[in-house]
Amino acid sequence: MGMMGETLTQILIPTAALAGIGFALLQWFLVSKVKVSVQPAKQKGFTERLIEDEEESVDGHGVLVKCAEIQNAISVGATSFLFTQYKYLSIFMMVFGAIIFLFLGSVKGFSIKSEPCTYNKENICKPALANAIFSTIAFLLGALTSVLSGFLGMKIATYANARTTLEARKGVGKAFITAFRSGAVMGFLLAANGLLVLYITINLFRLYYGDDWEGLYESITGYGLGGSSMALFGRVGGGIYTKAADVGADLVGKVERNIPEDDPRNPAVIADNVGDNVGDIAGMGSDLFGSYAESSCAALFVASISSFGIEHDFSAMSYPLIISSMGIVVCMITTLFATDLFEIKNVNEIEPSLKRQLLISTILMTAGTSVVTLLSLPSEFTLYNFGKEMTVKNWYIFICVSIGLWAGLSIGYTTEYYTSNAYSPVQDVADSCRTGAATNVIFGLALGYKSVIIPIFAIAISIYVSFSLGAMYGIAVAALGMLSTLATGLAIDAYGPISDNAGGIAEMAGMSHKIRERTDALDAAGNTTAAIGKGFAIGSAALVSLALFGAFVSRAGIKAVDVLSPKVFIGLIVGAMLPYWFSAMTMKSVGTAALKMVEEVRRQFNTIPGLMEGRAKPDYANCVKISTDASLKEMIPPGALVMLTPLIAGTLFGVETLAGVLAGSLVSGVQVAISASNTGGAWDNAKKYIEAGATEHARLLGPKGSDPHKAAVIGDTIGDPLKDTSGPSLNILIKLMAVESLVFAPFFATHGGLLFKWL
Amino acid sequence: MGMMGETLTQILIPTAALAGIGFALLQWFLVSKVKVSVQPAKQKGFTERLIEDEEESVDGHGVLVKCAEIQNAISVGATSFLFTQYKYLSIFMMVFGAIIFLFLGSVKGFSIKSEPCTYNKENICKPALANAIFSTIAFLLGALTSVLSGFLGMKIATYANARTTLEARKGVGKAFITAFRSGAVMGFLLAANGLLVLYITINLFRLYYGDDWEGLYESITGYGLGGSSMALFGRVGGGIYTKAADVGADLVGKVERNIPEDDPRNPAVIADNVGDNVGDIAGMGSDLFGSYAESSCAALFVASISSFGIEHDFSAMSYPLIISSMGIVVCMITTLFATDLFEIKNVNEIEPSLKRQLLISTILMTAGTSVVTLLSLPSEFTLYNFGKEMTVKNWYIFICVSIGLWAGLSIGYTTEYYTSNAYSPVQDVADSCRTGAATNVIFGLALGYKSVIIPIFAIAISIYVSFSLGAMYGIAVAALGMLSTLATGLAIDAYGPISDNAGGIAEMAGMSHKIRERTDALDAAGNTTAAIGKGFAIGSAALVSLALFGAFVSRAGIKAVDVLSPKVFIGLIVGAMLPYWFSAMTMKSVGTAALKMVEEVRRQFNTIPGLMEGRAKPDYANCVKISTDASLKEMIPPGALVMLTPLIAGTLFGVETLAGVLAGSLVSGVQVAISASNTGGAWDNAKKYIEAGATEHARLLGPKGSDPHKAAVIGDTIGDPLKDTSGPSLNILIKLMAVESLVFAPFFATHGGLLFKWL
Repeated sequence: MGMMGETLTQILIPTAALAGIGFALLQWFLVSKVKVSVQPAKQKGFTERLIEDEEESVDGHGVLVKCAEIQNAISVGATSFLFTQYKYLSIFMMVFGAIIFLFLGSVKGFSIKSEPCTYNKENICKPALANAIFSTIAFLLGALTSVLSGFLGMKIATYANARTTLEARKGVGKAFITAFRSGAVMGFLLAANGLLVLYITINLFRLYYGDDWEGLYESITGYGLGGSSMALFGRVGGGIYTKAADVGADLVGKVERNIPEDDPRNPAVIADNVGDNVGDIAGMGSDLFGSYAESSCAALFVASISSFGIEHDFSAMSYPLIISSMGIVVCMITTLFATDLFEIKNVNEIEPSLKRQLLISTILMTAGTSVVTLLSLPSEFTLYNFGKEMTVKNWYIFICVSIGLWAGLSIGYTTEYYTSNAYSPVQDVADSCRTGAATNVIFGLALGYKSVIIPIFAIAISIYVSFSLGAMYGIAVAALGMLSTLATGLAIDAYGPISDNAGGIAEMAGMSHKIRERTDALDAAGNTTAAIGKGFAIGSAALVSLALFGAFVSRAGIKAVDVLSPKVFIGLIVGAMLPYWFSAMTMKSVGTAALKMVEEVRRQFNTIPGLMEGRAKPDYANCVKISTDASLKEMIPPGALVMLTPLIAGTLFGVETLAGVLAGSLVSGVQVAISASNTGGAWDNAKKYIEAGATEHARLLGPKGSDPHKAAVIGDTIGDPLKDTSGPSLNILIKLMAVESLVFAPFFATHGGLLFKWL
Repeated sequence: MGMMGETLTQILIPTAALAGIGFALLQWFLVSKVKVSVQPAKQKGFTERLIEDEEESVDGHGVLVKCAEIQNAISVGATSFLFTQYKYLSIFMMVFGAIIFLFLGSVKGFSIKSEPCTYNKENICKPALANAIFSTIAFLLGALTSVLSGFLGMKIATYANARTTLEARKGVGKAFITAFRSGAVMGFLLAANGLLVLYITINLFRLYYGDDWEGLYESITGYGLGGSSMALFGRVGGGIYTKAADVGADLVGKVERNIPEDDPRNPAVIADNVGDNVGDIAGMGSDLFGSYAESSCAALFVASISSFGIEHDFSAMSYPLIISSMGIVVCMITTLFATDLFEIKNVNEIEPSLKRQLLISTILMTAGTSVVTLLSLPSEFTLYNFGKEMTVKNWYIFICVSIGLWAGLSIGYTTEYYTSNAYSPVQDVADSCRTGAATNVIFGLALGYKSVIIPIFAIAISIYVSFSLGAMYGIAVAALGMLSTLATGLAIDAYGPISDNAGGIAEMAGMSHKIRERTDALDAAGNTTAAIGKGFAIGSAALVSLALFGAFVSRAGIKAVDVLSPKVFIGLIVGAMLPYWFSAMTMKSVGTAALKMVEEVRRQFNTIPGLMEGRAKPDYANCVKISTDASLKEMIPPGALVMLTPLIAGTLFGVETLAGVLAGSLVSGVQVAISASNTGGAWDNAKKYIEAGATEHARLLGPKGSDPHKAAVIGDTIGDPLKDTSGPSLNILIKLMAVESLVFAPFFATHGGLLFKWL
């Protein structure tokens, strides 16, 4: 038995969650001390204000008003888009909830009779119908929490962007702290909220399930499915929205008209800034919440069929939640290092400071894990390993969690190396711009491919070690380990788009170049941290999916997934194809939407007299509408591909082919996702490297508007859909298909494989 | 017993091979009737001739001389590069031959004692040392045949290019026939040569092995390894050579200096044309020869452990060779449809005519297969299926071969759809050039990803059906079926680079625009056929690798390749990463070499007075040297990656991890390879679509030099390394690792997995 006991566990988990929420509120309070006036002092027309010169922008109140106005426009745009999206998603939730209920209910013909358990045949478990009902409820709860996570993130980000701009007037350090604190609000709110909802749900479900852990955690997996399916639409829809606007704005504004990024004369500029918040912030929030929910569910599910579940050891059963609780505490301490213990005085210190966050949280979490593992797990126990039992010591599990943590760090650092313009890979890409856009693209693609190597080895080693020590449970907790510092990860991830928006607001408000340079420096570090965040998301997705995959195989009663069986192999090769199909859809969508946006922006420049001169106001709303419509229409086919594949593969071809599909999409998708997001990040920073001109080499390539810079802008534009639409959506594809297969496993095992049965 | 009997089989196979060689010589004779004068009539300086105007170029003799001169320069350049490359490769052959001998010899400690067979324990097989010796000999023979195939192909192509140009003066139909006949020379020579050498080798080895089929065909797999390892270096080295020159020439010539492609003033123009012959022709020849050798070896090896081998049924054992013999006969008939039965009068007819070739050969081959299958295979027999036996009827095998054939056709047609500018996908990509290079790249990448879908389903269906009907033997003969029309496939594939060169010669000889338009039309069709050829190469590589993989698993004595075993899974995910690592290396190599080339070309334009005006001659030799050096240096790391991975994985991690690596690289590499080659083909043809201006839409985007055209040129340049270096090399990666694992399987099974043994 674990030393912790049920009572202490029942106190500690909600305490940590509430502490996280409290910490988030505290950070919010600190951010809110930066005042943004919403009442315009003098009633000048917007048009006039757009062209006022730099002198005026130093006038405090004028800037305040303008920033408030822009912030308000962004916030209104983002809120309205998300509400429209949620309208569609609520229909999806209802329909898919019904599918879950019907499919799972039909497993035993909607009988309300209790049945022998799947793993412990001597025990009696709750009826399959209960599983159907509770899975559906868990699915809806997960979906709602995911939507809430995304929405809260967006609200915080749009609250913080103008404040970061205003703080940038005082110096880069102040601006950094504001942006970082805002990221922390989001990080802690999400992590704590996810934990709390899961904790409450488990306790409520226990009122019915009692000691039937198997049934309880089988239903709880619906929570992960709900979280990830919303994340999919959030990422894809948001990704298409933001990149259609971004690519469209850049192609006409920067390339054709030669006006700066985020220039208020560009009609797509508001849509672009709204996009950062609905795509990078809301989408990513949903995504990482989904990963967190799934890795917890995977670990809980596997635990339920181990000796913990049989011996009703509450603290051991709750181990995944305890790890997450510890993670929140560790991240609180870590945050203080960035906001209070060190001060950023120079732009060069931003990236090291963010990197230090990762390192500190990893070190502290390793220590924290060792404590909670010894306290909550019995010193020796047995785990279920595909029909066999294996005996495990508690420190094995500590190693599994730690290896996940450190693999995450190494993925993060590798990503940083390949996407930061402080190192040679990005500088080489920038250098290749000397010979034009073509070599830039060739070098960028090669960089992305190369950046896959170390993360894959890190993942492979984690898998081997954690599987050897703890079978599928080991892999699930390794994933959880990688995600345990989620609050910090999210904070530095959200920091990026907030800084990006801050720069946009500075430009639109016509603030001085010095301010813009500061926000650009914040943003360049943000590109790197965004890539790091994506690296974590992908690495953890790989581990989570494998754990879910293992749980699915156990649940579906498959003895072995033998590559040499043709049923499995065709699944494997088709699964490996899915990331390409999916990327083709999302990239084409961005391309098509961007073409429409380009035409609209060109039309406005050509038909609105005085727009280029700043005498007339562009029609922002039309561009927002194009992005909204494109995103809502185009998110359906890729969403359908991901949601329907497991259902079709499982129903028609059976669990073995489905297992092949999951393994194939996992091993292939990870590569596509990592290379896409690093290539995109590298191109973006190669461009920023030339623009910043901080070294002699960079000045040789610059300045803005030079031929190498133009080539770099083309690379940046190509990278946009790669790094913000298709790349990050792929990790959702991987884990969503796995968790969906797990939820529907009882159905597939009973009724699946129709086609092969007919043949 | 098969009805055919040993004597008839022994007569038919060499007869078909010799007929193929005879047919190739006949085609060569027909091509040689186009006279290219090598004696210059008047001793004018080269410089002067370069700038002579179009009037003079209609003067027959002047053009003849110039074409001969250029052809000679290309031929000399290509020959000298290949000889330099072969010098390096002969060292590699010696070293690797020694490795094979030592590794395989050490399996039983170089004992010369006969041992019980691996599969039929009652029989006595030849000692392992014999296997080591004969495998090494087979390896060397395969390597030499591969090198010879590439070299002959290059010789024919450089013999035919100027002749095609000259025939283009008489009309597009004549030029087409010349190019196609020359392709046929190469196709038939390679197919027949491969068959003949294999046939002779088997018969010579039989003198020692007698009825020990198991030992015989185990050694024969060395032939496949030799063929493919040379192909790897041929493809990679040639690919880097050609694309460094091509990208370098385009970036300065077309983009910066605004001079036409293949303009004689461009210093890299000769290197570019040499590259077509050493990369696309010699590399591809070696590659497809390797595929052919491997699929034959895989089928033979699997056959040897089936009832054929046990019952010593010679005609059944030789079934793979009989299929290839039938293929040569079928392709001869098919060729007549292109060269004699139909005449090309219009540029629009080129592509349909080439497509018709594929269709006709597939239909005829299906009929031919049905005949030889009934004649050579017993009506019922047993096959070895991973430890179990399965009973198979001969018409099952007919279906396996046919499904391979038709899957090949469907892959070919899909590729054509996605890469020909007659259909909407390429036209959409061209259209996206309106908004610049970035959207062009985004659409092109999306197109490549999408083009993967149908080929993968075609491969998956072939695998499922042929495995269900004939286990691993079914898959091996399906691969052989896909490759049975190799002579035709190679003919239409080689046709492309020959036309490309013909266009280059027309431009360099200063021939009229009309001639250039005709060769451009031939070349546009050639891009599509090149993509089709690559599609075939990749599809067959997938099937071949799977068959080899199955043979490896059998030989290594692995019971199941269970994805859920951590040893296998880490292999799978690392294997799936290898195509990315490999592509990163090759693309970076092309990029780096191209940068050097760009600098050299720029230097020459800037420092040689009168070069732009055509008054001075560029230093072609320096550019040839840059390509040569880069290619020889840069082919080593990717080559080492592919050759060493199986050795390291097998020796350190053991056969299970290696099996995972093979499966992972197969399912992931296929996708990368197909998408890379189709993306590149589509970009090239989108550019040609704009240049040709055949439709109103195309004219809207053109003409040459317009902004959309410039964007299209950038796409084309990016596509170059994708479609001609990394993409086509990947299928070699896949099958080479598989055949290498098979050859070394006895060693890995005995001494492998050192790391896990130590742990």
